[in-house]
Amino acid sequence: MTTAFYTPPSSIRGDRVLLPDDEARHASTVLRKQAGDSIVVVDGEGGWHRVQIDHVSRSQVVGTRMETRREVGEMNVSLTVGLGLLKSRNRFETFLEKGVELGAAHLIPLTSDRTEKETLRRERTHNLLVAALKQCGRSRLPTVPSPQPVADVAAETDADLRLICHRPADAAGTLLQALRRAAAPASITVLVGPEGGFTDGEVAAATEEGFVPVSLGPRRLRAETAGITAAATVATWAAGR
Amino acid sequence: MTTAFYTPPSSIRGDRVLLPDDEARHASTVLRKQAGDSIVVVDGEGGWHRVQIDHVSRSQVVGTRMETRREVGEMNVSLTVGLGLLKSRNRFETFLEKGVELGAAHLIPLTSDRTEKETLRRERTHNLLVAALKQCGRSRLPTVPSPQPVADVAAETDADLRLICHRPADAAGTLLQALRRAAAPASITVLVGPEGGFTDGEVAAATEEGFVPVSLGPRRLRAETAGITAAATVATWAAGR
Repeated sequence: MTTAFYTPPSSIRGDRVLLPDDEARHASTVLRKQAGDSIVVVDGEGGWHRVQIDHVSRSQVVGTRMETRREVGEMNVSLTVGLGLLKSRNRFETFLEKGVELGAAHLIPLTSDRTEKETLRRERTHNLLVAALKQCGRSRLPTVPSPQPVADVAAETDADLRLICHRPADAAGTLLQALRRAAAPASITVLVGPEGGFTDGEVAAATEEGFVPVSLGPRRLRAETAGITAAATVATWAAGR
Repeated sequence: MTTAFYTPPSSIRGDRVLLPDDEARHASTVLRKQAGDSIVVVDGEGGWHRVQIDHVSRSQVVGTRMETRREVGEMNVSLTVGLGLLKSRNRFETFLEKGVELGAAHLIPLTSDRTEKETLRRERTHNLLVAALKQCGRSRLPTVPSPQPVADVAAETDADLRLICHRPADAAGTLLQALRRAAAPASITVLVGPEGGFTDGEVAAATEEGFVPVSLGPRRLRAETAGITAAATVATWAAGR
């Protein structure tokens, strides 16, 4: 599995593939790619393309698509993880990076009673997602919408399996137990609180929308660790079911 | 579950508990603890103590132990995770921090054919482990030995269940499947490669020592993501078995 290049679908016209400037510079200057070389290009929307390079200049790489596959590296279940925005931007970005690697389809920054931040740096986030996408062998870029109130996300989801992480004492077993009990869900949404967790009111409101409170174990995980653990649990479960 | 203070067992004499300088300063200056207040002190060796403060000065806190419990917040299986040393110290430290939160008993930095680094900053590592310990509600500090060759760790382990993470094509199923197949192991060792993974020779040598190759799924995880995912999978499995 070679590290891939990323290009948006709009840069693929028929069989002609153009790399964006920064990818082209990386290919030409760092990796010394030349005409005739074969590379893998992913479009972030499930397209995986083997491309033969026709032309390389310092800031441009153009090639011809030789083979296309769909949904390479994607999970067999559509996973959405919502995580409360954290005070530390670095920690939230760690969650986003790992969420890409672990195969999540949607990563939703949540606002809630205990979140303080309300924003995300869009361009930086996009670059981080693309870097993780290329590295991990996926073909689909997770969506990261603008921060949304947890109540709205809970009300609007139509996922087959809906889970909200909460204290062990108030949970119906662990996340893994809930996955095992579920009847082959095609889509799963897991909500994870910010520092301090969700309030009981927020959990109760989500429960009204069909969310089941689950635990990630007896220790108090940092919020981004909880988000990563939720994604990792679904990913390892999905890989072996 | 309140955030705990840490003191080494040598600072607990009978029922008299002394906090180390930095913990005492944090208790007195930041948290404004006073004589008569009740705090939780963990000793990193499985001891969890409720302590009533007798005396506070700027750099000293002395108290009396009122209640002691053992192994609070610890997993019901002894987990060792070995991870190849990474080029990025930050990424290795992310693994260590999450490993504490997820309940690992031992976190072993591995050297192998594909590792470049050979050292770890001891004091910085210790501080990071203690911070995670206090935050997550555990009572036992994971051991982090000096970096060791993966072959030595594989040869010396006596864990009931021995797993080594490898490519899906060369693995006997996923880590989670191996956990489910196992007959109630009391101890588990999981080895995770550095950037680029273990060599086939390293995996073969570990297999000779009773290690089973397992996969963490079809995507190529960053090394520290793989280490965290391994710990998270064991933790969520152990919490629900």
